[in-house]
Amino acid sequence: MHPDSSSNSGIKKAPTQFGKRGMSLEDELNESNQYYLSHGIAVVHKKPTPIQIVKVDYPKRSAAVIKEAYFRQASTTDYNGVYKGYYIDFDAKETKRKTAFPLDNFHDHQIRHMKACIASKGICFTIIKFVEIDQIFLLSATDLFYFWDRQKNGGRKSIPLSYIKENGYLINYQLNPLIPYLNAVDKLLIKKHEGEQHAN
Amino acid sequence: MHPDSSSNSGIKKAPTQFGKRGMSLEDELNESNQYYLSHGIAVVHKKPTPIQIVKVDYPKRSAAVIKEAYFRQASTTDYNGVYKGYYIDFDAKETKRKTAFPLDNFHDHQIRHMKACIASKGICFTIIKFVEIDQIFLLSATDLFYFWDRQKNGGRKSIPLSYIKENGYLINYQLNPLIPYLNAVDKLLIKKHEGEQHAN
Repeated sequence: MHPDSSSNSGIKKAPTQFGKRGMSLEDELNESNQYYLSHGIAVVHKKPTPIQIVKVDYPKRSAAVIKEAYFRQASTTDYNGVYKGYYIDFDAKETKRKTAFPLDNFHDHQIRHMKACIASKGICFTIIKFVEIDQIFLLSATDLFYFWDRQKNGGRKSIPLSYIKENGYLINYQLNPLIPYLNAVDKLLIKKHEGEQHAN
Repeated sequence: MHPDSSSNSGIKKAPTQFGKRGMSLEDELNESNQYYLSHGIAVVHKKPTPIQIVKVDYPKRSAAVIKEAYFRQASTTDYNGVYKGYYIDFDAKETKRKTAFPLDNFHDHQIRHMKACIASKGICFTIIKFVEIDQIFLLSATDLFYFWDRQKNGGRKSIPLSYIKENGYLINYQLNPLIPYLNAVDKLLIKKHEGEQHAN
C-alpha cells in the first residue's frame, strides 16, 4: 500500500490495514464489486480492455490463439452498472501525489462520455486513491468537470486534495466490501435529490 | 441480409432494404447506438471482447504488441448503458431458424447476469434477428427467463416465433437510427409501469 513510505513503518504505529498489500485499486474494486454482486446489492463490472485483433491462429483440437493484437484507447470509463435502478458509471484512478489530483489522469473522451451519461440522467463519479496517504475518495463528475473545463481555459492542472476532502466523500476501507463506495454513492444521491428539490 | 435466400431474389419484388447487405446485427446496433449517442438520446456501448493476455512485446519506439492471447467467455451481456435515467442491458442474437429462437444462443452466466440486473431494477431484454425473414424483435428478459427456466425442467429448447410476435416488440428498420430499438424500450417501460401500478 505504501511503496515509498516503508522506511517509516518502524517509527509510527501502523493503522489497521484492510487494503491488502500489493493490491491495486482495480483489484480492490473488483473484489468489492464481487461482494456487491453476490449479495444482490448492485451489478457493476469493469469493462474489458479494448483490443484491436490483427491475427488469430486456429490450431486443430485447441483454442484459437491471438498472435498479433494492439491495445486500443477506451472510449468510455472503466466501470458501469446498476444500483437501486440507477445507472452508475465511473473511473478509478490512483495518484502518488500528496496534495492534489492531476487532471492528466483523464482523457477528453472519458470526460465527454461522462457528460453524455449525465445528460441521460446517469450517476457519474470518479474514485480517487491517494496512494501515499492511503485515502480513497469519491468525487462527483460535476466537480471533476468544474476543474476540467477551467483547465481548458488556462486554469490549474490538478484538483487540490483540500477541495476533494471538502466536496468529495471519504471511503474508509472495511472488511466486506473492501471499498464500500456505494455508501458514498448513497450520499451523492441524497445531495442530488436535495439539489433537484431546491431547483423546483 | 439473406445469405441463403438469394435464389429467390429474381422472383419476388424485394422489399425496401434499410439494413445494409453484409452488415451484421452487431454492426447495425453499433451504428444505431452511435446515432443515439450523437443525438443525446442514450449512451449505449458494446463491451469489448474479453481477452486473456499471455505475452506482450514492448518494441522500442513503437506500440506494445500482444503476441499471445486467448478469447475468454464474457460474464455479462454484450451491451449496456443509460437511457432516460434507466440502466439498460441486453444481448443481441441472430438466428437462421424461421419459426423459433433456439435457447442455446444463451449461456447460464448471461441469464444469471440479467436476473441480477433485474433484481437491481435494471431494464433487461434481448434483441433477436430472424435473418431469413429479416425481422428484428425486442423480447423482455422476463419472457426469456420463462422459457429458459422451463427448458431447465425439460421444456422446449426454443422460443416460438409466434410467442415472440405476440409478446415481443417488432423493430422495423429505418434510416436513422437503422434499428430504432429504443422505441421498443419505451413500450417495454410503459408495460412495466402499468404492471407496477396493478401490483400496488
